[in-house]
Amino acid sequence: MNSKRESVCFPEGFLAGGLSCGIKKDGGKDLALIFSPSECISAATFTTNRVKSYSVLWSIRNIKNPINAILINSGNANAACGEEGWNITVRIMEELSAALNVPAKKILFASTGLIGNTLPEETINKSLKTLVERLSSQSGMDAAESIITTDRTIKTENIITSIPGRKKNSHVKLGAMAKGAGMINPNMATMLAFITTDAVISKELLHLALKEAVGESFNMLTIDNDQSTNDTVFCLANGKAGNKNIRQNSEEFAVFYRALKDVCISLAKKIAKDGEGAKKFIEVSVYDAWSKKDARRIAKRIAGSNLVKTAIAGEWPNWGRIMAAAGSVCARMDLSKLKLEIGQWTVYNKNPVKINGSALKDYLSGNEINIKIHVAMGKESATAWGCDLTEDYVNINKRE
Amino acid sequence: MNSKRESVCFPEGFLAGGLSCGIKKDGGKDLALIFSPSECISAATFTTNRVKSYSVLWSIRNIKNPINAILINSGNANAACGEEGWNITVRIMEELSAALNVPAKKILFASTGLIGNTLPEETINKSLKTLVERLSSQSGMDAAESIITTDRTIKTENIITSIPGRKKNSHVKLGAMAKGAGMINPNMATMLAFITTDAVISKELLHLALKEAVGESFNMLTIDNDQSTNDTVFCLANGKAGNKNIRQNSEEFAVFYRALKDVCISLAKKIAKDGEGAKKFIEVSVYDAWSKKDARRIAKRIAGSNLVKTAIAGEWPNWGRIMAAAGSVCARMDLSKLKLEIGQWTVYNKNPVKINGSALKDYLSGNEINIKIHVAMGKESATAWGCDLTEDYVNINKRE
Repeated sequence: MNSKRESVCFPEGFLAGGLSCGIKKDGGKDLALIFSPSECISAATFTTNRVKSYSVLWSIRNIKNPINAILINSGNANAACGEEGWNITVRIMEELSAALNVPAKKILFASTGLIGNTLPEETINKSLKTLVERLSSQSGMDAAESIITTDRTIKTENIITSIPGRKKNSHVKLGAMAKGAGMINPNMATMLAFITTDAVISKELLHLALKEAVGESFNMLTIDNDQSTNDTVFCLANGKAGNKNIRQNSEEFAVFYRALKDVCISLAKKIAKDGEGAKKFIEVSVYDAWSKKDARRIAKRIAGSNLVKTAIAGEWPNWGRIMAAAGSVCARMDLSKLKLEIGQWTVYNKNPVKINGSALKDYLSGNEINIKIHVAMGKESATAWGCDLTEDYVNINKRE
Repeated sequence: MNSKRESVCFPEGFLAGGLSCGIKKDGGKDLALIFSPSECISAATFTTNRVKSYSVLWSIRNIKNPINAILINSGNANAACGEEGWNITVRIMEELSAALNVPAKKILFASTGLIGNTLPEETINKSLKTLVERLSSQSGMDAAESIITTDRTIKTENIITSIPGRKKNSHVKLGAMAKGAGMINPNMATMLAFITTDAVISKELLHLALKEAVGESFNMLTIDNDQSTNDTVFCLANGKAGNKNIRQNSEEFAVFYRALKDVCISLAKKIAKDGEGAKKFIEVSVYDAWSKKDARRIAKRIAGSNLVKTAIAGEWPNWGRIMAAAGSVCARMDLSKLKLEIGQWTVYNKNPVKINGSALKDYLSGNEINIKIHVAMGKESATAWGCDLTEDYVNINKRE
């Protein structure tokens, strides 16, 4: 896996590394570093939870600066761990600053794991020098492996855009890694994503593009309606592609935004498919809603409904639960106009539709379920992703 | 059980009845009637779901009128069942009107059951006359049994207030029945409650009292965050106690409101305890919040969090999940002021508190779990109720 440039090392000029420093009791990799020797323009979206990880607080403070590196630990959320939490965070950042020879304010930090335990400062600090020594353009997959917790899969993405770079035949690239077994994990709770690009782009435009892309991807992902203290999406742009600066409303911006959105949607779907205990992936598309907000609310509510999720786990075409979930949000809806499809079957079209129950059950026995709801109130659409709710989800989250 | 006046027949002048008409395939009782020969002042709160049962739509239209009766069926939600649904509803009400010799507009209607199936008009109509013949002041428990679906318990309440009636040694009484195995049921979704009283009270005051009481009780109940198309709480007051009219801001109003709130809270707790697959009852109290809304939001979010509910199912004192749930709502909160208690144990007080893990685990092995969170931002408090999330919940809701 380490034989080529991929994951966050896919774009020019990004190095990465990952190792086991001893936070995880099982000896799994738990510390990752992304590094660009050239300063990066950066953008981020953070959890809106009032209980924020100290790592999130550190990054919120420094996201305005030019950025060279992001440190990520798994196995400990660095959240709700008391007043000393902030001081420990600062000292780890200073230690890494010395090892990288980069000011601490140019380093971001992300953590994922159990809430309420103090971050093991010594355990992390003693490994920082080794982590820096291992930085390479071939270690993107090591980093991606170091940020997961109980994820069943490592989640990365690489995209080459059509935006030409300075060198002959070169193009702007994006690379990315993410973790999250559905917002939630047995002991741990977090969704993290890290996107790198060698694009030349302004901070304002990068922020705009990331905010929009996250709105269409990670924010449309729901596993259990539980929001973490640590959710973070970072995007770093180091300008190494040497492309013509991407300007607002330009063709190039449209291409860059599309690529960024594709990266985010691909990672979001991978997280939904890896949901705790999940056996089925669910995609809910809402069409012709009055507003974008209405479309998103309806799509997310259906994908997040425990009753819809258990019905799908049971391969039971109980479409009444989908209708009840859709109706429960604050969005314009009228039963006499509505059309509901499960897979290729229309189950409701202004009135209930007589369906071939066994064909629909056959469809529900598959592991990718599509739900489409045509609201007929306007022109906006949205798609949300989730997974079924199984006994395994409960069992996994009961265990210490 | 039928030997005395209880449930909705507890106050003077109310009759009730219940029987099996054939909606439920297992032959269980599925049709109930509450009747007061004297017209009643009425108040109600209805689901805010955009997909409303035709029974709810009928009752919304007629709640302004003086009321004599409420018909309730279980086994079919009378929701999302197509254009004919409304006409069927009207014809059933007209049939009952003839049998009771009361105008249809003075009858309310409530339904609970599977969404999307047409109400079996003939099946219901052929039993209405028998149902009317069986009306008696001794049949409150028959009615209470006829409105449940997969509830494990019949839920009723009787209260005598200190407000004196016209007769010597008589007092204003309240009676009630409810159904709901946690908003949700295998095939069915609904919480219904019916409260009767013989109080003399104005429509405006009854509405005010019911709205407040529901806000403090049923609206603070959460099993799975799924909202039904049929949720309804009705209160009928027939004035038979002959008490001095209850006026706003009077001592009597305070007593009446307190009794109504007690009835509602008692029924809400009974519903939480009977949650699908639930083994543990959870009570979450929030103190010293900035506003009532903040207090309610935090309490409901904790009681409704899948991660908190699974941790409690696993008897695992993962208080970090409680903090994360509290922080995820839009409410004023500051970790450096917050205090969190599980049972009699303080687990966080501005900082994490070292706890006796085994004592706390002992506490969590019980079947009533109390969580208290002191926000220290203001003076408002709220309490929410829920239950743990078990594999049984998933299993029950997977099945057809």
